[in-house]
Amino acid sequence: MKYVSKPLRVKYSDTDQMGFMHHSNYLRFFENARISWLRELGISYKKMEEDGVIMPVVSSHLKHIKPSFFDDQLFIEISIIKPPKASLDFSYVVFNQNKDLICEGFTKLAFLNSKSQKPIRCPDFVYNLFVE
Amino acid sequence: MKYVSKPLRVKYSDTDQMGFMHHSNYLRFFENARISWLRELGISYKKMEEDGVIMPVVSSHLKHIKPSFFDDQLFIEISIIKPPKASLDFSYVVFNQNKDLICEGFTKLAFLNSKSQKPIRCPDFVYNLFVE
Amino acid sequence: MKYVSKPLRVKYSDTDQMGFMHHSNYLRFFENARISWLRELGISYKKMEEDGVIMPVVSSHLKHIKPSFFDDQLFIEISIIKPPKASLDFSYVVFNQNKDLICEGFTKLAFLNSKSQKPIRCPDFVYNLFVE
Amino acid sequence: MKYVSKPLRVKYSDTDQMGFMHHSNYLRFFENARISWLRELGISYKKMEEDGVIMPVVSSHLKHIKPSFFDDQLFIEISIIKPPKASLDFSYVVFNQNKDLICEGFTKLAFLNSKSQKPIRCPDFVYNLFVE
Repeated sequence: MKYVSKPLRVKYSDTDQMGFMHHSNYLRFFENARISWLRELGISYKKMEEDGVIMPVVSSHLKHIKPSFFDDQLFIEISIIKPPKASLDFSYVVFNQNKDLICEGFTKLAFLNSKSQKPIRCPDFVYNLFVE
Repeated sequence: MKYVSKPLRVKYSDTDQMGFMHHSNYLRFFENARISWLRELGISYKKMEEDGVIMPVVSSHLKHIKPSFFDDQLFIEISIIKPPKASLDFSYVVFNQNKDLICEGFTKLAFLNSKSQKPIRCPDFVYNLFVE
Repeated sequence: MKYVSKPLRVKYSDTDQMGFMHHSNYLRFFENARISWLRELGISYKKMEEDGVIMPVVSSHLKHIKPSFFDDQLFIEISIIKPPKASLDFSYVVFNQNKDLICEGFTKLAFLNSKSQKPIRCPDFVYNLFVE
Repeated sequence: MKYVSKPLRVKYSDTDQMGFMHHSNYLRFFENARISWLRELGISYKKMEEDGVIMPVVSSHLKHIKPSFFDDQLFIEISIIKPPKASLDFSYVVFNQNKDLICEGFTKLAFLNSKSQKPIRCPDFVYNLFVE
């Protein structure tokens, strides 16, 4: 399964004095893109947290191919790598408005009970989205 | 009453492509400086929140005189403007390592019950710090 | 003259442990909204910098009425207060998706030559946008 | 070669509504720690950029073991993995004030000519620091 984000602008405050988007912001862009994807699939991550499930990032990987610049419009292609179980694994490919490949990435998210902060299995309503 | 912060570095990720510290970060520096001041006065803001009191910023003002740059060391002078009641009012003057005046600022913080999110009066242990 | 931004989402990374959007982020939202307004008026702020004009914020004011939360959609109404001369003065009113008044703000931006970092007058092509 | 950072506080604005430090901020902490290490070895990264060498991050990896919280003091152990050539490779281990293992990480930095943005070899004064 795959999703392509709407264009996400590189904002002025995302840049650093090198003139590039600061590398830490790609993780924020990934987060926005996967929350948008969930929203489009009918899942509110906000509601999920209110219902007691939090999904912290437990590992991530980033490979930068080209820099991105202020005002660029980034398109993020997200895929699910395998059926979610104890974790939900996303991979990301980022292009700019000229179809230049900017960055590739990966994040693994855990499912935790927000009170106990103990790991739980992927809730059924999430599992069913990504597996038929 | 007055406090001067330890030198606070402008970090690389604080800069933007203008080469200046991004203006929004001064509010973060103010926050760090006032939390350090409270700590030095014997108050843990972390514990205060655990005890049910949150202190959101309800208004702020910033006047920028000179830019600050990556690696600068900023010194923040904080004062309490008047005895705390429903709010705690801080003013800030920021200097760099060359004693250049960088910025002046002001923030007003409210006291809220963290559960009800309703305003409360300044707790006695805070009031007593700033008034004899 | 007036502009209302497209809805701007409060992102997960904009929140703090109080559960509110961190107050410093309103300055970033203001920046995004005014850059979008300029873009809609036919001015690329990116190009303006490339042409040697930078517009740092020289003062700002924020008044918070209600907090905003993760996933909120904020609408920012921007106005020009007076014809631009040595500075460009914007005021902001922020509403959420329920039309709650969230925040009011003000920023003054200077025009600087990016090389000399000396103040310059408002370029004609900017002046003409805001004054008939 | 190895360096242990001074304690770096988790600031209020580093947290998100989960109550954890937002995962993107570890990359900022890594950056601060390696710039401090270079400073201690007698290299100003600021001056290096002024002299025409920029060092963007070209890949990174993060593994989160435990969350960190507001007011935590993080200690970052940095090592150089191999002699610098076309890139400078750092690994990081992060502990909190209780000696809990928080996070492990890795970043690869390139050396670029800041004007041409073309890759260059590691400058001698950097190479000599890390190799005898």
